[in-house]
Amino acid sequence: MEALFESTTEIRVRYAETDRMGYVYYGNYATYFEVARVEAIKKLGLSYRALEDSGIMLPVLQYSIKFYKPAFYDDLLKINTRITLCKGTRIVFDYTVLNEDGQVLSQADTTLVFISAATKKPIAVPEILLSALSNV
Amino acid sequence: MEALFESTTEIRVRYAETDRMGYVYYGNYATYFEVARVEAIKKLGLSYRALEDSGIMLPVLQYSIKFYKPAFYDDLLKINTRITLCKGTRIVFDYTVLNEDGQVLSQADTTLVFISAATKKPIAVPEILLSALSNV
Amino acid sequence: MEALFESTTEIRVRYAETDRMGYVYYGNYATYFEVARVEAIKKLGLSYRALEDSGIMLPVLQYSIKFYKPAFYDDLLKINTRITLCKGTRIVFDYTVLNEDGQVLSQADTTLVFISAATKKPIAVPEILLSALSNV
Amino acid sequence: MEALFESTTEIRVRYAETDRMGYVYYGNYATYFEVARVEAIKKLGLSYRALEDSGIMLPVLQYSIKFYKPAFYDDLLKINTRITLCKGTRIVFDYTVLNEDGQVLSQADTTLVFISAATKKPIAVPEILLSALSNV
Repeated sequence: MEALFESTTEIRVRYAETDRMGYVYYGNYATYFEVARVEAIKKLGLSYRALEDSGIMLPVLQYSIKFYKPAFYDDLLKINTRITLCKGTRIVFDYTVLNEDGQVLSQADTTLVFISAATKKPIAVPEILLSALSNV
Repeated sequence: MEALFESTTEIRVRYAETDRMGYVYYGNYATYFEVARVEAIKKLGLSYRALEDSGIMLPVLQYSIKFYKPAFYDDLLKINTRITLCKGTRIVFDYTVLNEDGQVLSQADTTLVFISAATKKPIAVPEILLSALSNV
Repeated sequence: MEALFESTTEIRVRYAETDRMGYVYYGNYATYFEVARVEAIKKLGLSYRALEDSGIMLPVLQYSIKFYKPAFYDDLLKINTRITLCKGTRIVFDYTVLNEDGQVLSQADTTLVFISAATKKPIAVPEILLSALSNV
Repeated sequence: MEALFESTTEIRVRYAETDRMGYVYYGNYATYFEVARVEAIKKLGLSYRALEDSGIMLPVLQYSIKFYKPAFYDDLLKINTRITLCKGTRIVFDYTVLNEDGQVLSQADTTLVFISAATKKPIAVPEILLSALSNV
């Protein structure tokens, strides 16, 4: 799928994120992807924190990941993030995680929904985000 | 899909697991499911720790989750875990998370692969596990 | 020091909580102690969640821990929690972590301060807590 | 106390690290300090990962922290790390966490012990580290 926007984030694996197999614990990738999509939004000129402070929440509706190879302590991971859909009340990101040798470690995607903090109901994608995406 | 084995696990949401939305952070469900499948294996009369100590690793190959409603601090979650496939080199678990009111909060599944710690290659499902499943 | 109240909590070590040394990651004990003090408060007949919902926050001011022996995956830890002080605007808990063999793994203490969510200023220990402690 | 070595690390607060108070969860600072001391060791020309791979473990013996002000989501924290002692079998780090306005949020220290992975016994501080510290 063609992306509306692409961005790359580097993340150094922390000791806390490994498990007794010596791998990055599988649950910790969700945090990496959150960091990656927040950076993508920053590169679009927006701030996720400001979005929340303005009364818009963006919880995750769906998350899916495939693991091909493990990541290890102190690895410098590269996460390629793509916004593949942003319409209605939703935004979809997909992610590819690579290690320093360029090997693909995992691939994932998340669907998030825009929610009004006041009503807890879904709302349309904010105009400021649509506008930022159309100016890429 | 019919399950080979079913098990229920209760998990109390910890403060550390919430985020500033007041929800359980979406990444933390992976930990809940790990707890749930380890308990399922215990109820089958096996020990995941003993499995690892005997040289068998069981990393996650694939993980997928859908979120319907958030979980909150101090909620007592009920996780229904089902083993839906266990053959070749893989085992598949699916999970349904419910709150105390019986509302379904999320549904997920994981595929794990049996690996030899020595060779790092996939190996067949251990006989002891197949035997436990066939005696359910 | 004599305790105002004592309570015991059992915690099973999760895979996510181990690190590549095979030990429980040192940062994760803070979560165990939070679980332990919330249980202590429950045993006093109160609810930490209800406290927060009534507009009282209880952030940690100080935390200190000594490690004697590591904890491992799947260990069933016993945490002995004692409230050693509760006056003015503060409450002090101390904790001893033991493994299944009764070995002391670590000892810790935390000081927390009662804060008004509205003003973000320290407030006196709630009467309901003082009353529960005096009826122990 | 005069420092043997000083280093500064910047850490962006992740969403996963906040709690329902909106603060960085108190347990997550331990991870920040681990990142900070690993960076300090890197700046000394050494690698903590290589140290471990050579059979030396460095578990934490003691950790203590005082909290003055909370950190919030997306804050760019500055951690000033100082090695204040490195002799016998131990190394002591102290840490000061500041926010972007230069406010001191917390202060902490950790004592770590060098352990042989083979014997699990304390060993002398590696020569390569003493040498690096004396050439600062």
